[in-house]
Amino acid sequence: MKPLIELRSDTFTLPTSQMMDAIQGAVLGDDVYGEDPTVRQLEQEAARKLGKEAAILMPSGTMANLASLMAHCPRGSKVIVGNETDIYIYEAGGAAVCGGIMYEPIPTQPDGRLGIADMERVFPLEPEDPQFALPSLICLENPHNRMGGRVLPLSYLEEVRAFANEKSVPVHMDGARLFNAAVALDVDAAEIARYADSVQICLSKGLSAPIGSLVVGTEDFIQKVYRLRKMLGGGMRQAGIIAAPGLVALQQMTDRLAVDHANALRLARGLAEIPGIVTHVEDVETNIVFFRIEHPVHTWQTFIEAAQAHGLRVAELGHGRIRAVTHSGIETADIDKALVIVRELLQFQTV
Amino acid sequence: MKPLIELRSDTFTLPTSQMMDAIQGAVLGDDVYGEDPTVRQLEQEAARKLGKEAAILMPSGTMANLASLMAHCPRGSKVIVGNETDIYIYEAGGAAVCGGIMYEPIPTQPDGRLGIADMERVFPLEPEDPQFALPSLICLENPHNRMGGRVLPLSYLEEVRAFANEKSVPVHMDGARLFNAAVALDVDAAEIARYADSVQICLSKGLSAPIGSLVVGTEDFIQKVYRLRKMLGGGMRQAGIIAAPGLVALQQMTDRLAVDHANALRLARGLAEIPGIVTHVEDVETNIVFFRIEHPVHTWQTFIEAAQAHGLRVAELGHGRIRAVTHSGIETADIDKALVIVRELLQFQTV
Amino acid sequence: MKPLIELRSDTFTLPTSQMMDAIQGAVLGDDVYGEDPTVRQLEQEAARKLGKEAAILMPSGTMANLASLMAHCPRGSKVIVGNETDIYIYEAGGAAVCGGIMYEPIPTQPDGRLGIADMERVFPLEPEDPQFALPSLICLENPHNRMGGRVLPLSYLEEVRAFANEKSVPVHMDGARLFNAAVALDVDAAEIARYADSVQICLSKGLSAPIGSLVVGTEDFIQKVYRLRKMLGGGMRQAGIIAAPGLVALQQMTDRLAVDHANALRLARGLAEIPGIVTHVEDVETNIVFFRIEHPVHTWQTFIEAAQAHGLRVAELGHGRIRAVTHSGIETADIDKALVIVRELLQFQTV
Amino acid sequence: MKPLIELRSDTFTLPTSQMMDAIQGAVLGDDVYGEDPTVRQLEQEAARKLGKEAAILMPSGTMANLASLMAHCPRGSKVIVGNETDIYIYEAGGAAVCGGIMYEPIPTQPDGRLGIADMERVFPLEPEDPQFALPSLICLENPHNRMGGRVLPLSYLEEVRAFANEKSVPVHMDGARLFNAAVALDVDAAEIARYADSVQICLSKGLSAPIGSLVVGTEDFIQKVYRLRKMLGGGMRQAGIIAAPGLVALQQMTDRLAVDHANALRLARGLAEIPGIVTHVEDVETNIVFFRIEHPVHTWQTFIEAAQAHGLRVAELGHGRIRAVTHSGIETADIDKALVIVRELLQFQTV
Repeated sequence: MKPLIELRSDTFTLPTSQMMDAIQGAVLGDDVYGEDPTVRQLEQEAARKLGKEAAILMPSGTMANLASLMAHCPRGSKVIVGNETDIYIYEAGGAAVCGGIMYEPIPTQPDGRLGIADMERVFPLEPEDPQFALPSLICLENPHNRMGGRVLPLSYLEEVRAFANEKSVPVHMDGARLFNAAVALDVDAAEIARYADSVQICLSKGLSAPIGSLVVGTEDFIQKVYRLRKMLGGGMRQAGIIAAPGLVALQQMTDRLAVDHANALRLARGLAEIPGIVTHVEDVETNIVFFRIEHPVHTWQTFIEAAQAHGLRVAELGHGRIRAVTHSGIETADIDKALVIVRELLQFQTV
Repeated sequence: MKPLIELRSDTFTLPTSQMMDAIQGAVLGDDVYGEDPTVRQLEQEAARKLGKEAAILMPSGTMANLASLMAHCPRGSKVIVGNETDIYIYEAGGAAVCGGIMYEPIPTQPDGRLGIADMERVFPLEPEDPQFALPSLICLENPHNRMGGRVLPLSYLEEVRAFANEKSVPVHMDGARLFNAAVALDVDAAEIARYADSVQICLSKGLSAPIGSLVVGTEDFIQKVYRLRKMLGGGMRQAGIIAAPGLVALQQMTDRLAVDHANALRLARGLAEIPGIVTHVEDVETNIVFFRIEHPVHTWQTFIEAAQAHGLRVAELGHGRIRAVTHSGIETADIDKALVIVRELLQFQTV
Repeated sequence: MKPLIELRSDTFTLPTSQMMDAIQGAVLGDDVYGEDPTVRQLEQEAARKLGKEAAILMPSGTMANLASLMAHCPRGSKVIVGNETDIYIYEAGGAAVCGGIMYEPIPTQPDGRLGIADMERVFPLEPEDPQFALPSLICLENPHNRMGGRVLPLSYLEEVRAFANEKSVPVHMDGARLFNAAVALDVDAAEIARYADSVQICLSKGLSAPIGSLVVGTEDFIQKVYRLRKMLGGGMRQAGIIAAPGLVALQQMTDRLAVDHANALRLARGLAEIPGIVTHVEDVETNIVFFRIEHPVHTWQTFIEAAQAHGLRVAELGHGRIRAVTHSGIETADIDKALVIVRELLQFQTV
Repeated sequence: MKPLIELRSDTFTLPTSQMMDAIQGAVLGDDVYGEDPTVRQLEQEAARKLGKEAAILMPSGTMANLASLMAHCPRGSKVIVGNETDIYIYEAGGAAVCGGIMYEPIPTQPDGRLGIADMERVFPLEPEDPQFALPSLICLENPHNRMGGRVLPLSYLEEVRAFANEKSVPVHMDGARLFNAAVALDVDAAEIARYADSVQICLSKGLSAPIGSLVVGTEDFIQKVYRLRKMLGGGMRQAGIIAAPGLVALQQMTDRLAVDHANALRLARGLAEIPGIVTHVEDVETNIVFFRIEHPVHTWQTFIEAAQAHGLRVAELGHGRIRAVTHSGIETADIDKALVIVRELLQFQTV
């Protein structure tokens, strides 16, 4: 098999050598006792970078979102989420199971936005009527994975903030790839985070750390998440082992996301020229490219298999769409090689 | 104030004199010990009429649905429901709170159906992927309240049954007004119920009993519902007090629903002729009429208030639509009076 | 079979003729819309009698307790309950299932009290440590069923109240038989209820109504219970049907509980003189008598069966103890007959 | 401050240099996709060592226990646990919150056993009575932390197994320190694990890995835990980072626990000779020593503070008892220094 070009996800990123060095040098303690200085440092850095009072390290983005929802939403209330979000689709219904929270999925616009009018409809005219579960949180995903890594405009975030204030509900942002959004908008991540009460960010996607996500918010909120983390089983002992590379990720890996974006655009442009591929170059704002196979011979299933046999890995992500994600393990040359593979595959089959 | 024409809901029906007599004559026992013979008789009659092995009395349709969902769906699974159903909108998220069940709302067709293709999409291609909560139940509402009392065709029920079998998930039918559907289709209720694994029927809507719903299904299923009923607090002592009028409801009140349907049609036809009212006569299949106010002066809010001042009560039911429901407390003459009131109201205001 | 003397429980009480008359005369409405005047009247009367701001009708004591616990206790907190209480043993774990609440059972003293020191131990020294679920409610049962209907002294209630205030947790009283306690102490029920934030009382035990319990508390608290009642499925339509006899129960049936107490004492004294019976006459404070069979031939199982064959029904209630409960369906002559039956049974067998 | 002798817990253990090397050399992949070979290797090794079909890596013992309970126990059932166990006291009520499971705490014997008769009482005579939540799991803790690290005898495990079989409920063993038990009994860990359906073991206590626990059991069971792990947020990306040192822990660190046991015994014997200390040398079976301060001047609080000021750290663990735990960071010389510190502290104060 040819050398692998891994475009299935940016979760496949491997730690950098700086990260591995940081692990060796990390001062460790028992974080369940609150005594791991490296974890403390990472949490402070994350809070600082996102302009929030406090932060907390979590073993995964799923737990970061779950604990945030549970901290915001009382039992029997509703969380407003996009119907195409990670929280609604890929987190196994955790908020219902662990929180007794009802998901209210809202149609997701092609650019990842939830319509204010659609959210408005979830608030009953007669909130005192006990038939209705009441909304207690709005969740946004930014950038939006299943909408092709689209970035929510700051003006939209401002609108949502105003709406949330009017309705007296908080806003949680699933910012698993928040730094990609910041790079795309060319603003500090804090500029985006300021519109949300809580934000989760992921260290193990584009930022390339091996493990970990963080939740940021007010001191009080993080205190609640802290209790929930223990209950869910996210309290880890010498967590400095994962905080150390996480700190490198936060400090050294955010700016280079621009390279991933350029590579994604290069990939999209190349794909757009290949007969049998349908893609929308103009939608590529970060490191994600979606495309479809419209081909006399190949279906998405056979295409994925054939590509893999030639050393290129991509994956289906709902409704037969194929996703390719660029990241620190992909160089521009890999993109060009990937395009060659795709072109040959589709050509060969059409002969 | 003029004498009241109550069209807000068929839940306002008062017990008949036969029901009041039945209460006086009821043989009572402690039903928590399983020793109330009147409850036993009601449950047997319901099971027989719906062609199922067993039935159980519940204090409300909400609990009947909730316990049914909990009996069918394991913690962390998904229930497929229409986005316009009572279960999704009016039952306070109980399945999430008490069952750790995730609701997956499906677009509801104008006639109350859920598209098979829409349901198909809820089943993940890779069910072994732990990211996905897995569907464990399909819920239908028949007739469909918010879709104007529309009745699901038997051919559609057959289709859903086949789909459910293919997917190995059970079907629950919220048949709060199931006998209205049976009358509309001119079939036995059992003819409808046979396509569902469990059905809830309501004694206190068109059937006019004061309190109570029933769940029917297999012996094993009803045994599970029985345990859940106790936990939820639906075990009642001398429940024969409500079972006795419920028995009258089942035995004497189902056929007369045809009168309600005729009255609803009469109302719809009359309303359709009044300028300022928008309604769809062809949609009226049972005892529910929806209409909108499109009027230079009146909004739905002012209309409802003005009507009430003239002795006619109707209510809004989502998106500014007004619902009128006929029932045993409404005679044909009341319909004609109601039409006069509406006509005058809208006329006067437009002068 | 001989005419039945039913001493298994006071839940077997049948409605009085005044209650049946009240049902016939009841003005009804749809209580889910808050329009049943009889329910309103019952709730006001209950609040008044118990000296609280508000009350709400529930289909059962189980739901009354469950909704109260859910209204008091956030998800993930602990409820302090006696290990011999109805809430802990006989309510199917509802607070864990529906509320995500952890039960912390405390040893129950022979007179039904929970030791203050035992409760103290449940409060962690370091409440900020997220390992610990934190106590959010103290539950008392008064009188205490499994402790033989023992009544909690007012001085003890005062102590618990002071302790709860010190710990900033509310107190819920399961007063299924609260009026028995009031009669035993010769005080108004409000004198007892004042030490608790919320109280549930049962209309269908000694008070002899067919169905229903009430929760009393502050307006705010009852509003929360009201929402929870809907979610659990306790909202009932023409609930005046059960409120009407409930009102008779509250107004006419509380004083006569003294007769049941006298009968219970008479029973206990009689039993104490029968060889083969072990009972503690001094423990009988209300309408419950516990005894054991210590007999060369009879076990509690054979005794219960044999008694039933002679027209006397009693039941085992944990650890082989037999419970006899007096109520409105039992006259003094029945007690004497019951004693004759027991005496003969045990005599015959020992010959 | 003098150099620290850390005896608060064996969770403070730092990774060995072999572990740090293993991290550097680890082959990594995305374990959420099931593609981290180092995690696979660790899981296979754990399953092998414990004689079970399969194993799964978890971020903490809390999640390992929580997911195990949820996989075993349906919603609304009871888990039988010791009242002094980690699961009951230190895991924040997670099984109630996330699983709707009711804890039934059983008195813990001084040696960590739960009496069979006590467990027997939890099974109701009439399981079909819906009042009762039914037991669905027995949990043992072995060795038992709060009972001083006592080890459950194999003969007792056999008894529990037989009882569980008779009752048709599974057994889960919280074996956070299982290898300490194996060393104490001088048997393979599999010899202990065979009596349980599922076992959780901790890599980050005596075994000294930085992070992680494992659950072992049948393939089917681990598959369920795998789904639950994702939902709870325990799925981690390049988890080989923690699996690599975990593998070293399993392969190289189990035998040396004998040294910790010898040190604990040495500590206990030394403490027993110091006036003002009450301890039970005969209870020390593994690496835990409990003692009390009975001293004219020092309370446990002042003692702990004073010891810390002299470079010795111990902690209170319930009811004023002080716990000292030996581990890989403690050498025999440290024990002797600790004894000197304690002796001086108590002597000085008594002058």
